[in-house]
Amino acid sequence: MNLTNHQFRLAARPVGLPKRSDWNYTEEPVRDPGPGEVLVKTLYLSLDPAMRGWMNEGRSYVPPVGIGAVMRAGGAGRVIGSQNPGFAVGDHVYGILGAQEYALLSADAAKGLTKVDPKLVPLPVYVGALGMTGLTAYFGLLEVGQAKAGDTVVISGAAGATGMVVGQIAKIKGCRAVGIAGGPHKCSYLTRELGFDAAIDYKNENVAEALRKHCPKGVNVYFDNVGGEILDIVLAQIARGARVVLCGAISQYNSTTGIKGPSNYLALLIASARMEGFIVFNYASRYAEAAREMAGWMMAGKLKSKEDIVEGFQTFPDTLLKLFRGENFGKLMIKVAEDN
Amino acid sequence: MNLTNHQFRLAARPVGLPKRSDWNYTEEPVRDPGPGEVLVKTLYLSLDPAMRGWMNEGRSYVPPVGIGAVMRAGGAGRVIGSQNPGFAVGDHVYGILGAQEYALLSADAAKGLTKVDPKLVPLPVYVGALGMTGLTAYFGLLEVGQAKAGDTVVISGAAGATGMVVGQIAKIKGCRAVGIAGGPHKCSYLTRELGFDAAIDYKNENVAEALRKHCPKGVNVYFDNVGGEILDIVLAQIARGARVVLCGAISQYNSTTGIKGPSNYLALLIASARMEGFIVFNYASRYAEAAREMAGWMMAGKLKSKEDIVEGFQTFPDTLLKLFRGENFGKLMIKVAEDN
Repeated sequence: MNLTNHQFRLAARPVGLPKRSDWNYTEEPVRDPGPGEVLVKTLYLSLDPAMRGWMNEGRSYVPPVGIGAVMRAGGAGRVIGSQNPGFAVGDHVYGILGAQEYALLSADAAKGLTKVDPKLVPLPVYVGALGMTGLTAYFGLLEVGQAKAGDTVVISGAAGATGMVVGQIAKIKGCRAVGIAGGPHKCSYLTRELGFDAAIDYKNENVAEALRKHCPKGVNVYFDNVGGEILDIVLAQIARGARVVLCGAISQYNSTTGIKGPSNYLALLIASARMEGFIVFNYASRYAEAAREMAGWMMAGKLKSKEDIVEGFQTFPDTLLKLFRGENFGKLMIKVAEDN
Repeated sequence: MNLTNHQFRLAARPVGLPKRSDWNYTEEPVRDPGPGEVLVKTLYLSLDPAMRGWMNEGRSYVPPVGIGAVMRAGGAGRVIGSQNPGFAVGDHVYGILGAQEYALLSADAAKGLTKVDPKLVPLPVYVGALGMTGLTAYFGLLEVGQAKAGDTVVISGAAGATGMVVGQIAKIKGCRAVGIAGGPHKCSYLTRELGFDAAIDYKNENVAEALRKHCPKGVNVYFDNVGGEILDIVLAQIARGARVVLCGAISQYNSTTGIKGPSNYLALLIASARMEGFIVFNYASRYAEAAREMAGWMMAGKLKSKEDIVEGFQTFPDTLLKLFRGENFGKLMIKVAEDN
């Protein structure tokens, strides 16, 4: 096919915030797919806080990205070559494509692809609210958090990709949804556009006071995307039997002085409460069921998707930093190529 | 009856380790019981780490002890006067008696008393392994910790009152029990007398290394009585789906520089694990059932009780400190009076 692939390959393990020199931008010809292989042209690349963890050495729920390897990344694309009976040229797919313009996937790796239909909803929605991000929100809130009607659900990073979906599902399920986000613009979006009951602007408000006001009966479920000080503030206001869902800790991922553990963790003891981590992969057998339910909510206008789309594959290292600066608003992704 | 009562009443909220001047030693005549009241002569007084928390102001699972009030304490005693149809003179009871030689309990307070039979097992056992301490171990391990046969259970403060029982129940249930305790004497007692599979002497061993050796498949249940550094060390070695049971954090109760939160809490995320606090009172409706099962284990020789009994009510302030210095070995209590 005579195509040229560009890639971001990990060059060094970052200390603190990743910088451009932590990756090499490489170029190589695209090889035709062999038996079982699928060749996907990347259209959208998903940028996720978890990527920072994948760059570190050491134990985690997936192996670290190797030095010299293509940076791990989710994305959506179009099949442009296939020797795999499961995929035909022209199919649209979603999965782990890597930070590259073309992904040549082995038969085994292709098992992780999901076929999606951009005629039903636009492709970016499959990367966001109907993709891993949405599934993370769904299983985190309903399975790990055991959110039930009447619960007060507090969400940090509420204007981030996962947080937005968590709050909307909380509302659908009859909970009170209180989001914590940075800045008045994000906060008013949460309440006016997404139906959150309240939003707390951590950059301009006293979060503890605002929580007391908006959660007079305490917090039943705290969906935590940020860790750090805000986790401690919320722990001080959990209700009896509360569930703290650990989805992430974006405030800590780039720390060079060690992780700040939650000093108020003994609130869990006082309140007979739990704090529980999870990985969306745990629920892989139920993805289809959840995605169907979420698609139904979307069709019914109850669940909105918001994407923050940056153009240009080469912006990858800088665009990723938007996550850690709290600059994204909705699901952050890069548009890599036109769908043609 | 012309009896004189002595009491330890809270005089000041301690900063750091409690000191004798944080209580007043008071004397007053014993009043005869009125309608519904029960008068109990304290025989054994239970000393528990939780007492430190009760001395603090602020939100907890029970109200703080008021300044001037008799220090809250569990204990066992004999009814010496009663105008309550539920209790007769000569009955032995266990419950919240307070740090005093005689407890005059209202009809309402008397509902919290449990009648016990010192002919079946000695009275101190009802304060220890068959009392709140044992029930805390039982429900913490089996309900909160969901320990199952084959699990590796690690217990900190393993030579303390609760820890000893936790390890023995773990063995009864087919788990591997690994205790962490201070000093070779306590450690050898755990393995030789109580059947723990291994014991780690945190004062003389590298706990992380010893854990790797004794828990090669990781830790499924961690029953934490101590908090602090050891909690962080164990978190780094939890297995997928692990349960961290927060029973206490004795290393932190007297801190004057704030609580040390677990820096490794994101291990919960990586391992899809949970950390959960509890209060034994949550399981009050099942006390009888659990106590019966534990009494059966005791009769069968599978569950041993070990008490650390100090003589003399007046030693209360100093004896309490044994807990925070790790000097107790088994269930710490004060023998207040002879049973005559």
